[in-house]
Amino acid sequence: MQTNPSKTKTKGQKVVYLFGDGKADGNATMKGVLGGKGANLAEMSSLGIPVPPGFTISTEVCSEFYENNQKLPESVREHTLKALAEVEKIMDKKFGNAVNPLLVSVRSGARASMPGMMDTILNLGLNEQTVVGLEKVSRNPRFAWDSYRRFIQMYSNVVMGMNGSLLEVALEDLKDEKGYKNDTEFTDEDLQKLVQEFKKQVLNSTGKKFPEDPFEQLWGAISAVFLSWNTPRAKTYRQLNDIPEAWGTAVNVQSMVFGNMGDDSATGVAFTRNPSTGENKFYGEFLVNAQGEDVVAGIRTPQEIVNLEKVMPVSFKQLMEIQKKLEEHYKDMQDIEFTIEKGRLWMLQTRTGKRTAKAALRIACEMLDKKAIGVEEALLRIPPATLDQLLHPTLDPKANKKLLCKGLPASPGAASGAIVFTSEEAEEYKKNATKCILVRIETSPEDIHGMVAAEGILTTRGGMTSHAAVVARGMGKSCVAGCGDIDVDYNKDQMTVNGRVFKKGDVVTLDGGTGEVFEGTVQTLDASLDENFKRIMKLADERRHLGVRTNADTPADAKKAREYGAEGIGLCRTEHMFFDPDRIDVVRRMIMSESSTERKTALKELLPMQRKDFYEIFKAMKGYPVTIRLLDPPLHEFVPHSEVEIQALADRIHMEPDKVRTRVRNLAESNPMLGHRGCRLAITFPEIYEMQSRAIAEAAAQLVAEGDTLVPEIMIPLVATQKELAVLRKLTEDTVRQVQKEKNVKFDYLVGTMIELPRAAVTADEIAHEADFFSFGTNDLTQTTIGISRDDAGRFLGAYVNHGIFEKDPFVSIDQGGVGKLVKLGVELGRKTNQKLKVGICGEHGGDPASIEFFHSAGLDYVSCSPYRVPIARLAAAQAAIKGKQGVRH
Amino acid sequence: MQTNPSKTKTKGQKVVYLFGDGKADGNATMKGVLGGKGANLAEMSSLGIPVPPGFTISTEVCSEFYENNQKLPESVREHTLKALAEVEKIMDKKFGNAVNPLLVSVRSGARASMPGMMDTILNLGLNEQTVVGLEKVSRNPRFAWDSYRRFIQMYSNVVMGMNGSLLEVALEDLKDEKGYKNDTEFTDEDLQKLVQEFKKQVLNSTGKKFPEDPFEQLWGAISAVFLSWNTPRAKTYRQLNDIPEAWGTAVNVQSMVFGNMGDDSATGVAFTRNPSTGENKFYGEFLVNAQGEDVVAGIRTPQEIVNLEKVMPVSFKQLMEIQKKLEEHYKDMQDIEFTIEKGRLWMLQTRTGKRTAKAALRIACEMLDKKAIGVEEALLRIPPATLDQLLHPTLDPKANKKLLCKGLPASPGAASGAIVFTSEEAEEYKKNATKCILVRIETSPEDIHGMVAAEGILTTRGGMTSHAAVVARGMGKSCVAGCGDIDVDYNKDQMTVNGRVFKKGDVVTLDGGTGEVFEGTVQTLDASLDENFKRIMKLADERRHLGVRTNADTPADAKKAREYGAEGIGLCRTEHMFFDPDRIDVVRRMIMSESSTERKTALKELLPMQRKDFYEIFKAMKGYPVTIRLLDPPLHEFVPHSEVEIQALADRIHMEPDKVRTRVRNLAESNPMLGHRGCRLAITFPEIYEMQSRAIAEAAAQLVAEGDTLVPEIMIPLVATQKELAVLRKLTEDTVRQVQKEKNVKFDYLVGTMIELPRAAVTADEIAHEADFFSFGTNDLTQTTIGISRDDAGRFLGAYVNHGIFEKDPFVSIDQGGVGKLVKLGVELGRKTNQKLKVGICGEHGGDPASIEFFHSAGLDYVSCSPYRVPIARLAAAQAAIKGKQGVRH
Repeated sequence: MQTNPSKTKTKGQKVVYLFGDGKADGNATMKGVLGGKGANLAEMSSLGIPVPPGFTISTEVCSEFYENNQKLPESVREHTLKALAEVEKIMDKKFGNAVNPLLVSVRSGARASMPGMMDTILNLGLNEQTVVGLEKVSRNPRFAWDSYRRFIQMYSNVVMGMNGSLLEVALEDLKDEKGYKNDTEFTDEDLQKLVQEFKKQVLNSTGKKFPEDPFEQLWGAISAVFLSWNTPRAKTYRQLNDIPEAWGTAVNVQSMVFGNMGDDSATGVAFTRNPSTGENKFYGEFLVNAQGEDVVAGIRTPQEIVNLEKVMPVSFKQLMEIQKKLEEHYKDMQDIEFTIEKGRLWMLQTRTGKRTAKAALRIACEMLDKKAIGVEEALLRIPPATLDQLLHPTLDPKANKKLLCKGLPASPGAASGAIVFTSEEAEEYKKNATKCILVRIETSPEDIHGMVAAEGILTTRGGMTSHAAVVARGMGKSCVAGCGDIDVDYNKDQMTVNGRVFKKGDVVTLDGGTGEVFEGTVQTLDASLDENFKRIMKLADERRHLGVRTNADTPADAKKAREYGAEGIGLCRTEHMFFDPDRIDVVRRMIMSESSTERKTALKELLPMQRKDFYEIFKAMKGYPVTIRLLDPPLHEFVPHSEVEIQALADRIHMEPDKVRTRVRNLAESNPMLGHRGCRLAITFPEIYEMQSRAIAEAAAQLVAEGDTLVPEIMIPLVATQKELAVLRKLTEDTVRQVQKEKNVKFDYLVGTMIELPRAAVTADEIAHEADFFSFGTNDLTQTTIGISRDDAGRFLGAYVNHGIFEKDPFVSIDQGGVGKLVKLGVELGRKTNQKLKVGICGEHGGDPASIEFFHSAGLDYVSCSPYRVPIARLAAAQAAIKGKQGVRH
Repeated sequence: MQTNPSKTKTKGQKVVYLFGDGKADGNATMKGVLGGKGANLAEMSSLGIPVPPGFTISTEVCSEFYENNQKLPESVREHTLKALAEVEKIMDKKFGNAVNPLLVSVRSGARASMPGMMDTILNLGLNEQTVVGLEKVSRNPRFAWDSYRRFIQMYSNVVMGMNGSLLEVALEDLKDEKGYKNDTEFTDEDLQKLVQEFKKQVLNSTGKKFPEDPFEQLWGAISAVFLSWNTPRAKTYRQLNDIPEAWGTAVNVQSMVFGNMGDDSATGVAFTRNPSTGENKFYGEFLVNAQGEDVVAGIRTPQEIVNLEKVMPVSFKQLMEIQKKLEEHYKDMQDIEFTIEKGRLWMLQTRTGKRTAKAALRIACEMLDKKAIGVEEALLRIPPATLDQLLHPTLDPKANKKLLCKGLPASPGAASGAIVFTSEEAEEYKKNATKCILVRIETSPEDIHGMVAAEGILTTRGGMTSHAAVVARGMGKSCVAGCGDIDVDYNKDQMTVNGRVFKKGDVVTLDGGTGEVFEGTVQTLDASLDENFKRIMKLADERRHLGVRTNADTPADAKKAREYGAEGIGLCRTEHMFFDPDRIDVVRRMIMSESSTERKTALKELLPMQRKDFYEIFKAMKGYPVTIRLLDPPLHEFVPHSEVEIQALADRIHMEPDKVRTRVRNLAESNPMLGHRGCRLAITFPEIYEMQSRAIAEAAAQLVAEGDTLVPEIMIPLVATQKELAVLRKLTEDTVRQVQKEKNVKFDYLVGTMIELPRAAVTADEIAHEADFFSFGTNDLTQTTIGISRDDAGRFLGAYVNHGIFEKDPFVSIDQGGVGKLVKLGVELGRKTNQKLKVGICGEHGGDPASIEFFHSAGLDYVSCSPYRVPIARLAAAQAAIKGKQGVRH
């Protein structure tokens, strides 16, 4: 939730920044204004690296564009024309000139890299006149007309909104007609014909003539870049990657250089290190006689970068020097794009390279060793959420495996699931809680929602830098790319692998680390965490102030969390134990009781079971604090609801079915979230918490008798008033004291509460009189503060995010401006009464990096999250502490 | 919700206060320490009014008693014995002495009068020896033994916890055996026998001997008074009357005087003015040869006080002087108890008399005229909630009426309902929303819950000061008492009136103002408000700062509220209009729509209907502001849920039943209170608010065209964030602007929001940027802040009030310490952004006097409540302003 961006009027301000010819108006620090791409082009140009000259229209124009009814302001047009004239001077060409035409590319460039999200136009400036000029200047008619037909394809799709497949069909038709297998077989005559055919189709389909005026083309392309900032797919990417809507995009207009001018031309993308493993080895791909889009789109499968040395040794040497210079300059792994035009190397882009978590850790450690960066910088380099990747299982090497085929190891991790062939199907399967693998010939930005839904992605075309590979790595999903042995038939919903047919729903397993695809489900092993991980975690632990506990309800979870570095349990939910099949009927008998005596009889049966639960959890967490929350959910959640189940239960617990039915009906509530639950259960049925307190105390007594030391923390949920907690604290203390007397052992223990209602937060000073600790239950606190039921929010939360009312789902990342205010107030008031009050948080937000940063600044003592999020929380807590020290604003 | 009382240790402090013989340790200002009764006994004694000597054990001992494990501290016993010795000196009698025994009464006396709530013991000190002494001193054996048997009855019931009816049966048995009709026919021998029989029964029933030691009797009785402070019925009374638990009760021990020593003795209760009408005329009842309890319990029907002049002229004259002196001294109507023992008048009690609202207004006005009190005092004298009584309908004099019988006009107001014979049945009927009349031979404190549930109360015995009459007046319920023509048969669940049988469920109508009982339902007329009411309201209006608006959804409600002085509408709920049978199917078609277009078609049909609604309401409120809340409830509330209704609806709106069924199912929510409702509806379906805004604007335009002026206030509900309001404010403004253009008229209007979510309150500074006004929706704000669903709270709210966790139901009186904090914060933050922000409240709390006092102190501009609560709010607002000026703490 954020307020409107401050509306900057750019009039009179610098909005167009030139670069090229070893100079630049901007530099790498100006990403906010120039976008990542523009800032780096300027920086590279200043560094003397060969960059095709051009200019960047600043991000500020993006907001102005939207405020100006999605039209380019006149002043921006003027500045653009001036800059274009400068570029013409450098290149000694004229935009729109029929003799020596300047062609440009128009690309987006946001502050944060958004691969594949924004639309790009190449070869802009071509028309029936200039194409003839290009033909002559390049002495390559085929190249000229191929450029023109590519330009029409891109422009008609991106700017004019035409369905791209229409022209694709025309192209394929001509190929069929001529009996060609590849596009490269087209002659210049074919291409001229195609251009005319394309223009006809454009007119038919859009009702508009394809623009011949290069300036009209330019304004159209620039506007299209700004418009693409707000396409649904761009919005989806921003949401997934926490990019504020207000940032906007810049537009880069740059002289074209061509990798498709013949066999002395090439284009490629590369990383200064291996982005999957982090290995310090130049890594990338190129295509001879191709434009950049051919590499990224994965239409032709490119060669490995090392091969460039053989093909174009001079350019390769120059490229190696440049990539080294760039990494040393930026002190981080770079992701670069280059084009070789008739033997001359041009750098088109450099940016910080996306990498797997494994690679991020290795690169950080190696740069730390080289003293290129310090510890804090190393820690800040690793996005905490990506650590999740390392904790995913890998294939068990001993498992039975039937290898089907092998593709490129595009994104690590093992994944099994039913194969599906469309993103819509992937979402369907996800909804039905069935794991699936999305199989596509290649993916496009339209597939992002399917990739989010799938366990893993398998493509038959494209390389390590294809859309599928880049996006999957960003998501931490397993991906095998370019698996050419697979033939996908979308119409039949099936794929053929070496003659064998696999239908939709058949299960396969991917190993994204090796590129292997297996038949059926393959056994997996827990992730083993390498030395880089351990080193970074240790460094993080040394720097963080927040403690990190875990939410665990079983000894197994507790053990797992300890392995990941949890320093105790922040939330042990006792109700999960109630659902155990062995005891659920006893629980139900307790619920069906009509008197306190009956209830106590059932509770007596539950007592030894709960005692054992607690004993084992205390044991697993030996030496670390364990916070046990007493029963919280409404009793209705424990009883059966269908007629058949009610009959069966009545039989089993020897009750009249009518009585069971009535009781079940009476337990139903209009708003169970705000109903008879939490400590309200114990105000009406004190014997429930009495039993649970006794089970905790008896388990503790047993451990103390065995020589262990421990300080159990008993947590009362859903407290709204001081008096509630006073009544239940007394009940708890009386019970524990009684047990200590019976068992003749002493141990310390704490009694505290969850702060999960707004009333508790605003009266925390009163409640703190009765509490040894607070734990913010931010799930419920979010529900009550914003007045949104998590179960029902689906119906409108989408519209809310689309309207920008919520920047992020407030159940995923804490609503700092609202719920966060109450958290801060609760901490402040609580500590006013009790300076030593321990304060933690145990909602889902405890594992969310942005929320953790907030909790650090709010002065909490610890966060508690699920076992698999513990490493993330440790790193996020360290980053929060470092940023806090550095004075970064929250 | 309050914290524990501060624990005062009384050791070394004065805890026993003497009075009598024209002197006293205490006075009338010491009600906190001595209780009302004790303070007034002391005051009367100091005034030289004849009061039987005695002493008061202070209220501070009450808490000490509970802290001391419900035992009397030793120091208190010592002080009591010293005081008793003083009383012995004054009376020249000895407590426990067999020759000239001192007998005492032991009574409770809390700070606020609690009639019938606390237990009383008379004739304490009697045993087998002292009864003989009494026999001789009084020369009346019958009186002595009658006193003894009464003492045993009371003591065994109140102190020893024995079921009172057991002794009653023994007494009735003896009456039958002897063939007596009245208790007065018992001889002294009969009574001696009865005493022995009683003692045997006490031993049988309780397992304990009836105590012979007068001191044991005394300590037992004092403890019983303290214990009775915490009986369920005392708690119920405190809850109904807002009496804090911490106050405690004092104990009054006083020499006995006897109104039952023969025909020169009498006892009575009286008011210095008529408590029903307020007429300045001495008013009361007495019984010759009776104890006070006989009058209060209503077992014998007493004579009117004027008759006393004939029977005992000297005592009457003295009584007239005393009552005049008392009223002049206290400057308020007094409720007095007296006893005449062998021709000598003793005053037993004086206290401020309970009165009807009508009487309260008349008394306040008349005392104001006499300059006995000032305007502010006059306003403070009237409990605002009682004004409700005046607004209740009376019987239409022209209506067809079949008079059944006539009793005493015990509490004004007309009431119709089905007759029921137990309080449990009354509650049952209330639950089923069926109006009922509780018919009892006589009522007791055990019947309070039934009296709360019933529309009116009808008793066959007892007078104007009987339990039924006093309690009904306090509650503002219609009551006809002492209706001797009715014979109630509890066993057959029926009553016979002059030979005609009426079964449970038959309908009767009461006129509490005349004492008449009618057959069936009788037409009623709206209350006509007298000059005193108008005068007090005018004085209140001159003093209050808070505006008073009304919650009204129809022109009729609006008109009614205007009559009661509402200064506008604070909440007009548009959804109520949607339920109109003529339009509900259109609403449902709108809800069932699958596209925005379909929805718009249905909304277009609703537009003229809503426009008419608004036009008429604006018209009714001409010249006053009208706040219209746009659609708020979840759509699920408008659709049918049973299979039959779904089928029928599908038919009517020409839809597939399956589609209707699916849509209905999809609309269901887990927690509708926190679901898709309020402004969330308009974020997803903007066309709904668009239609409503249009209807408002078109109605306003029509009125403006007709020459009226108005400023409609459009209110957006359930706003949580600034952006939500910004989006919807824009939608509203665009629509209104469009209408103004179409109709070519201009008018001002406001757009504001409800503050009903904690997030809205804590971000009120942000929200105020988009709001012209705030209206606190304290119903929903209470639900979300405390996390309690009003619909589900029934299951535990009782336990909460019993535990003292909530002093009052937070949905009735605002939770000042929690919800109130958010209200104050919201006002403060909102005004920080917009100093001119209008701030009101439109929850149920807008009609609750305690809440109104709080809203005054929070600086709100107005409260809005239901039409019938408007006068209450006006008076409460004036009292708040006066108390605020006087520096009374809130």
